[in-house]
Formats: sequence, C-alpha cells, structure tokens
Amino acid sequence: MLAEAIKTYQKRVDAVLSEHLNQLDEAAPQLKAAMQHGALLGGKRIRPFLVYSVGDMFGVDVNVLDKAAAAIECIHAYSLIHDDLPAMDDDALRRGQPTVHIAFDEATAILAGDALQTLAFEIITSPYEGLTPSQQLAMVNVLAKASGYQGMCGGQAIDLSATNHSIDLQRLTELHNKKTGALISCAVEMALIAANAPAEQYLLMMQYAKTLGLAFQVQDDILDITSSTQELGKPQGSDEQSNKSTFPKLLGLPGAKACAEQLIQDALSALTKLPYNSQLIADFARYIIERRL
Amino acid sequence: MLAEAIKTYQKRVDAVLSEHLNQLDEAAPQLKAAMQHGALLGGKRIRPFLVYSVGDMFGVDVNVLDKAAAAIECIHAYSLIHDDLPAMDDDALRRGQPTVHIAFDEATAILAGDALQTLAFEIITSPYEGLTPSQQLAMVNVLAKASGYQGMCGGQAIDLSATNHSIDLQRLTELHNKKTGALISCAVEMALIAANAPAEQYLLMMQYAKTLGLAFQVQDDILDITSSTQELGKPQGSDEQSNKSTFPKLLGLPGAKACAEQLIQDALSALTKLPYNSQLIADFARYIIERRL
Repeated sequence: MLAEAIKTYQKRVDAVLSEHLNQLDEAAPQLKAAMQHGALLGGKRIRPFLVYSVGDMFGVDVNVLDKAAAAIECIHAYSLIHDDLPAMDDDALRRGQPTVHIAFDEATAILAGDALQTLAFEIITSPYEGLTPSQQLAMVNVLAKASGYQGMCGGQAIDLSATNHSIDLQRLTELHNKKTGALISCAVEMALIAANAPAEQYLLMMQYAKTLGLAFQVQDDILDITSSTQELGKPQGSDEQSNKSTFPKLLGLPGAKACAEQLIQDALSALTKLPYNSQLIADFARYIIERRL
Repeated sequence: MLAEAIKTYQKRVDAVLSEHLNQLDEAAPQLKAAMQHGALLGGKRIRPFLVYSVGDMFGVDVNVLDKAAAAIECIHAYSLIHDDLPAMDDDALRRGQPTVHIAFDEATAILAGDALQTLAFEIITSPYEGLTPSQQLAMVNVLAKASGYQGMCGGQAIDLSATNHSIDLQRLTELHNKKTGALISCAVEMALIAANAPAEQYLLMMQYAKTLGLAFQVQDDILDITSSTQELGKPQGSDEQSNKSTFPKLLGLPGAKACAEQLIQDALSALTKLPYNSQLIADFARYIIERRL
C-alpha cells in the first residue's frame, strides 16, 4: 500500500515536473538541459509525497496538489544542485549519477539552481484551478519562509560553518530543523493550506511534520554509516570524512536509533488525535526510519 | 528634480531593504552579513526608482510600493552576487568594493544569492497593506517570470554561451532583453499592478519599459569603452577582455550611440500618449543614455 502510493505519487510529480520543464523554450538549451538533469534525476520525492498524501487525507482533489508538489520539488532540486557545487559539499555523484556541475559545468549548475528556485514560485503563482488567490499567496509565503534564511539556506549556512568543528545536540537539531525539516514541514503545510484545515488539526499535522523531518535526518546520518556506497548512490561515510557533526557521533549509533524511534512515536501520536484515516502517512513515518536508502 | 528624486527613492529603498535584512535573526551571522553586503553595497537602485516613480505617476501611495521596490532589488542583488562568482564573470570588484565571494567566501556568496532570491518572494507575500491578494500574487508571478529561465537567468546563460564567439545583433538584443530588460520591465509592471492600470496604458508603459531596458544595456556597453576604471567601479574594458559581443562592437561606437538615442525616442513617444505628467520618467529615460556610470 505505502510502496504503491510512493510510486504513484513519484510518477505523478515527475510527469508534472517534466511538463513544466519541457514547456520552456529553447533560448538557452544548455540551461534547460541542466535544469531537467537536476530536477528529474530520480529520488524518492518525499516532499511531493507529503503534499499529495496529506492533501488526500484531508479530501483535497489530487489535481489541486500537482503544482504545490512540483514547486516544492523544484526548491529541493535547486538546493541539491547548489549543495553539490565544489565550493559547497563538492559532490560528483548524486543518486548514482553525475551531479549537475559535473555533467555540465559550474556556471550552468549555479544558474540551473537559480532558475529552478524561480520556477517554483512561477508554478504556484500561475493560474491555479481549485485554489483562491489567498491560498496561492499563502503557499508562496510558506515556501519562501521554508527555503530562505530562516529555513533551508540558513540551515546550509550553519552546516558549512559547523564543518570541522563539533557542535552540540541543540545546535545540530536547529541546523537540521532548518536545512531539511523546514521544507518537509512546508510540504505538509501546503497541503493544509489547500485543504483550509482548521487550526487544531493544523497544529497536530505540523507536529507530525516537524518530528518526521528531524527523524528523516537522523536516519540519513545513520545510513551514512551503515549503508554501502552503492545503496546510497553517493560515497559511504562522507559525513565522517568531511568532519561533520552527526546524530550517531553525538549520541552513538544505538542512541541515534532510539532518538529516531522516539521522534516517530511523537509523529504517530499526533496522528491518532485526528478524525481521519491516517494509515498511509503513519506507515510513511515508520518507513522514514526503516528505509535503507 | 530627477537627481533629487533618484536620491530620495534610493534612500527609501535602502531603508526598507535594511529593515528587512536587519530583522533576520542571528542563527547564521555570516550568511546574514553577506546578504547585507550584497544588497546594501550602494548602486543607483534603478529598478526601485522605476517602481516608485511609475507608481507615483499613476497615483499609488508610496508606502504601497515599498515592498515591491525592495523585492525587485533583492533579485537584482542576488543576480550580481552570482554573476560575480569565479565560475561566472569572476569579478573581484563591484561598485568599488570587494564582491561577496571576496569579502566572504564562495559558498557563502552562493547561499547569500540564493537566500536573497527567496527573500524577494517572502517580502511580497508577507501581509501587504494596500494590495489585494490577487495583486500580490500577480507581482510574484511577474517577478518570477522576469527572473527565471524566460528572463534574467536565461539571459545570463545565453551571455555565458556567447563569450568567446561573436553573436549577431538579433541574438545580442534577445540576450539583453532577458538579462537586463526583463527585470527593468518588471519594475514598471509591478507599479502598474499596484495601480490597477487600464490595459491601454499598461501596453504603452511596457513599451516605455522595454525600450528603456535595452537602451540601458547599450549605454552600459558604451561606458565600458569610454569610462575609466575609477568611474565604473570595476575594470574598464572588461567586456573587450572577456571577448563579449557588445553593441559598440557590432554597430561601432557612433552606431551604438545612435541606437541608444533611437530607443529613448521610442520610450518617450510612448509616454506622450499617456494622460499623466510623465516628466520625471521622461527625464529618467534621457538620463539612462547620458549617465557616465
């Protein structure tokens, strides 16, 4: 059921993304190809999954969720392209394929990231059947907040400044709440905006989203130690090599696993208070800390 | 009159921008400082000037224009930071001061540009007295279109691909219409959205904006040849050195000057058909091709 839903939504958002990218004219063919490479490299599409599955739980028509799902994935894709740059994490491999600056060049990778960020905002603000202008506006606003200084960019900056010297658990948690958590929460929030969810349910869902986002990162840190390079699609142990603080480093491997488990319990407990069938996103929460890649 | 208005609006948008940037928390102090450095480095603030002066001509309250003016300058500032990067134009000097990647480092410059782009969209979508949600939404949409693949980013990509081999006048015009013109037109368009300008006046103003934007770039190319390094605040003759196609190269210096003059005549002729006192933005058009920096 979960595996099927993940696949269905993954295919769906890939189709929507492809359509938006294919529509671009041929004025700058290399830039267009780099944007396509970066955005359509595969991946689990976790953020779109959350947009779709949470929206569906609240009874939102799936067609109304397409643009939100595509937009948030554009932001995620742009962040990966820029994070992989030589001046940042300097990664040559992503999902088993050459990163954008390797497949093209650095200048093109910078521009492709830039243009994918912009495309996210263009997609949500284009004519949008099923949403009021206020809902569209709210979506842009939460997406911008989650992506910028207060969110993802700020988290990446803290991450860079924390490389080569250790940080404590509180700072590591802040880093990941911003770097990864903000956009995962945003995916849930966009679905709630589309659903016009009542305040109390909104808060419960945001609790689910926040704990899920952090658990995701804890599990990522665990996988960096326990998985093979082939499973990860990127060099195993790269956190260790780049002297990054991680949850296993601060808590030990069993401690990190217990931490992830506790976070998922918190996420699940929020769901039990909702008057909906939350089986799918409950299974998803469990999957987040049981996945092998 | 014009000089005074330029100064007034320059100070005004600087104050608005400073406020938005100072408000950011201290979670990532180096990133915050880099964003401030890049956005508050000085500069003529041509795009905000157009937002304010066109808005004022149409009777829009100046307070309603502040966020649009600040947002478009965030986009411009981010583009300069990324364009100056080693992988792009590799400029160490901007407005007589070290560029962001020199004053900080490359990773921080990439992130500062990214976060300034996001901030633009956050600013326009935050609570906005004097505009309806539909107007805010329209502003985000035109800003995104002007900034992304169809506009500024696409123009920069064409520019990079055109370095070291010559392009013809049509392609050079397309390049600059996208790279510089799109955002200048967008400044005018944001003011028209705030004013709810009627369709006919909208079209006339967009004619003004489009010809002005191109004239601006033609004059930039001319100044790269005729000004000193000190006047420019960046190395004189840098277009020549980097083997870029320019209007003077394709048309000769007198031809380029005649071209700029013709464009401004077209801009002015659009203004004469408007039932407003357009003296200020007419003077501005003239200034664009008479400026020395």
